[in-house]
Amino acid sequence: MEKMTEDAQRERLEQQIRFIIEVDRVKNIFRQTYLADGQRKENDAEHSWHLALCAVLLKEHMEEDVDLLKVMTMVLIHDLVEIDAGDTYAYDAEGALTKRGREVKAADRIFSILPEDQGSYFRELWDEFEAYETADAKFAHLLDNFQPLLLNDASDGRSWSEHGVHKSQVCRRNERIPETSEIIWEKMLEIMDDHIARGHLKAD
Amino acid sequence: MEKMTEDAQRERLEQQIRFIIEVDRVKNIFRQTYLADGQRKENDAEHSWHLALCAVLLKEHMEEDVDLLKVMTMVLIHDLVEIDAGDTYAYDAEGALTKRGREVKAADRIFSILPEDQGSYFRELWDEFEAYETADAKFAHLLDNFQPLLLNDASDGRSWSEHGVHKSQVCRRNERIPETSEIIWEKMLEIMDDHIARGHLKAD
Repeated sequence: MEKMTEDAQRERLEQQIRFIIEVDRVKNIFRQTYLADGQRKENDAEHSWHLALCAVLLKEHMEEDVDLLKVMTMVLIHDLVEIDAGDTYAYDAEGALTKRGREVKAADRIFSILPEDQGSYFRELWDEFEAYETADAKFAHLLDNFQPLLLNDASDGRSWSEHGVHKSQVCRRNERIPETSEIIWEKMLEIMDDHIARGHLKAD
Repeated sequence: MEKMTEDAQRERLEQQIRFIIEVDRVKNIFRQTYLADGQRKENDAEHSWHLALCAVLLKEHMEEDVDLLKVMTMVLIHDLVEIDAGDTYAYDAEGALTKRGREVKAADRIFSILPEDQGSYFRELWDEFEAYETADAKFAHLLDNFQPLLLNDASDGRSWSEHGVHKSQVCRRNERIPETSEIIWEKMLEIMDDHIARGHLKAD
């Protein structure tokens, strides 16, 4: 950065500010998960805050080494595409068919608001998250699936009840969690079985 | 962690889960700042998400070197004390008198839910933020003050208008920003002067 002129630095700041204001809109993208108190649904900004904080706390339970700073940044931006594409519920089969196309188009638009180096970095992080191959992406997905399960648990399985979700659907969605963290997968199964016993989640 | 028994690891996870659910309550602590679209006020979880993301983008404008991972974690947890202490508006002189005592009591309770090493780490980060002395704390405070100013700007100075805020109050609250980032302070002054011209912020 040392060779950058003050004008170039000011132009970068203006682009960053445009992005900061643009992404404010995820605070109005609501998910299907209820807050722990069951009073209202959670939005993407709240969800992403929670995941980044969980990343700091739960890193120790991962089977593979992870880059915490990278994972935190990944989860902070992973849902920005929903500003254009909307939230597709985890068990919405019809929405899932068009999800990828809608989200790629959104990523093209939203990340290009930033200075090119920063936009490319965020895009790479989002692509890595979507590809779900690296240890960092697997940790990010674990967070993205474990946090709503904890909120579902705290809110008496309200989201599962409302959507008539089956344990097999949750297990399919979480099929890579056991290899990511055995202890967290064990806890997830315990929570699911408890909610089957209480009639909130359907056994298969 | 290698010598830890599975039982001890499971107990740590249970403490972490209790904390993760407890802090869900910041999603219901509302601030005086409006979202960029001016439609409703922002809550602490959304605000903290926005600050962590801004940290990644704005680090390049800081005068001193900062530890990004540490600053991100600091801003993610900096408002958790408001779960018990509530949000004290930046220009609420009466609330400011009792703020510190209320917040320290809250920090004692909330961070002690975690395994001791993690609770101590978060407490140290919060103490460092509050002391406002290190380069990392100065960056975190810059984010904590710049982000609401950007939202105020986007929402036609609504929060300033409603509270009859004077430029001198904003400047006093931001007196350490010029030494933290000259270019961002310059931008803040530009925004303030624009809103004085438009009648949303009072000149002195």
